[in-house]
Amino acid sequence: MALRTLSAKNAAALDQELMSSGAFSIDQLMELAGLAVSQAVYKLQPLSKGKRVLVACGPGNNGGDGLVAARHLWHYGYKPTMYYPKQSKNELYQRLTAQLKSLSIPFTDDFPAALKETDHVVDSIFGFSFSGEVREPFPAVIAALGDTQIPVLAVDAPSSWNIEDGPPGDGPGKGYMPEALISLTAPKPLVKFFKGRHFLGGRFLSDSVAEKYGLDVPPYEGIDQIVEVPTQGEKL
Amino acid sequence: MALRTLSAKNAAALDQELMSSGAFSIDQLMELAGLAVSQAVYKLQPLSKGKRVLVACGPGNNGGDGLVAARHLWHYGYKPTMYYPKQSKNELYQRLTAQLKSLSIPFTDDFPAALKETDHVVDSIFGFSFSGEVREPFPAVIAALGDTQIPVLAVDAPSSWNIEDGPPGDGPGKGYMPEALISLTAPKPLVKFFKGRHFLGGRFLSDSVAEKYGLDVPPYEGIDQIVEVPTQGEKL
Repeated sequence: MALRTLSAKNAAALDQELMSSGAFSIDQLMELAGLAVSQAVYKLQPLSKGKRVLVACGPGNNGGDGLVAARHLWHYGYKPTMYYPKQSKNELYQRLTAQLKSLSIPFTDDFPAALKETDHVVDSIFGFSFSGEVREPFPAVIAALGDTQIPVLAVDAPSSWNIEDGPPGDGPGKGYMPEALISLTAPKPLVKFFKGRHFLGGRFLSDSVAEKYGLDVPPYEGIDQIVEVPTQGEKL
Repeated sequence: MALRTLSAKNAAALDQELMSSGAFSIDQLMELAGLAVSQAVYKLQPLSKGKRVLVACGPGNNGGDGLVAARHLWHYGYKPTMYYPKQSKNELYQRLTAQLKSLSIPFTDDFPAALKETDHVVDSIFGFSFSGEVREPFPAVIAALGDTQIPVLAVDAPSSWNIEDGPPGDGPGKGYMPEALISLTAPKPLVKFFKGRHFLGGRFLSDSVAEKYGLDVPPYEGIDQIVEVPTQGEKL
């Protein structure tokens, strides 16, 4: 019953198609992606279990999803803290950042200190377009995510994992296995190696696009923007 | 316990502020507004009570909210039908329309026939910027909404109502009292005259903006984008 997966190349093509013939704007897609991420945090970490969420954002779209998620988390009653060391000049990310600042959500440069003061972490550092080397300042951050006992939700990919081949054999992400993963639009091939709880977001796909890319659309419930799906690696 | 209201003039100023210093894009705000509308339909009209929803869209932003709502309703499992006779050349509305067409959601020109074949109606014809005359082809549509026994959810305002003074004394909207209303961001003064169920959407306001405009932010639950608030007119 494993869900079919989407390669990095096809994920990029699908995003392009959503924004061309699909007529979605990046603002819309990122809003829906971040909303889905926030709903996964809500399922994993009820407010009664601790409200502090550290959101680690990378410089690209994965980081943008984290920025949106943090805003929704604040409105749900969480206390997000942002770690966003490589802030893009991209106008959309700047606006998403300004939205957080107008809620007085704190930004920190000190990841190790913030990690000691949180109940949950969102890893929105790297997504499906990651390949190659982990650049500064992220190696130490990813190593800390691998070492911590605090639950981590990874967005689309555990950062530093190879999108096709999964966990790196060495480097900062060696041994990094987040508690949970939310795959956006469709699982990437790395889910074969992932052993935690697995959610899917992307309740905006048309049947024709799902069919074209060979994707499964599992049954979402109610108004949820996410659905929990089977863990495809061996369970933790 | 009545919520404070926002005049048409201040509603326009607040929208402008959200998009300037608030750093929101119209795409984002409309996505969140339409999502809130879809969640109100879900509360009012569970799928088990009938899946057919006729969404009547006007030419402006209120119509845009309806376009977004219809897409979410489709994904929840409803069968929306669109009545959108004055389609704007505005690029955003064109994209929202294309998104519906890619889901094969039908568009109709025959409102009376569609009204006979639906379980619920969303009135997203006119919003807080409405004033003056109801233009063609909407007078007959609004008169039909006033006459029908099918439940209607109005978005921000029952179409043709004066934003300050409420129900018109004559014209097509005379006697029109929808079953429910969703106020977006804040109730408008017309809610004093509204007798149905009342929802509020707009879970993106910062405390500072709410304070500046003298607005109440009632407690939303869980991940909901809407909250039911007291009926401010006499109850139906």
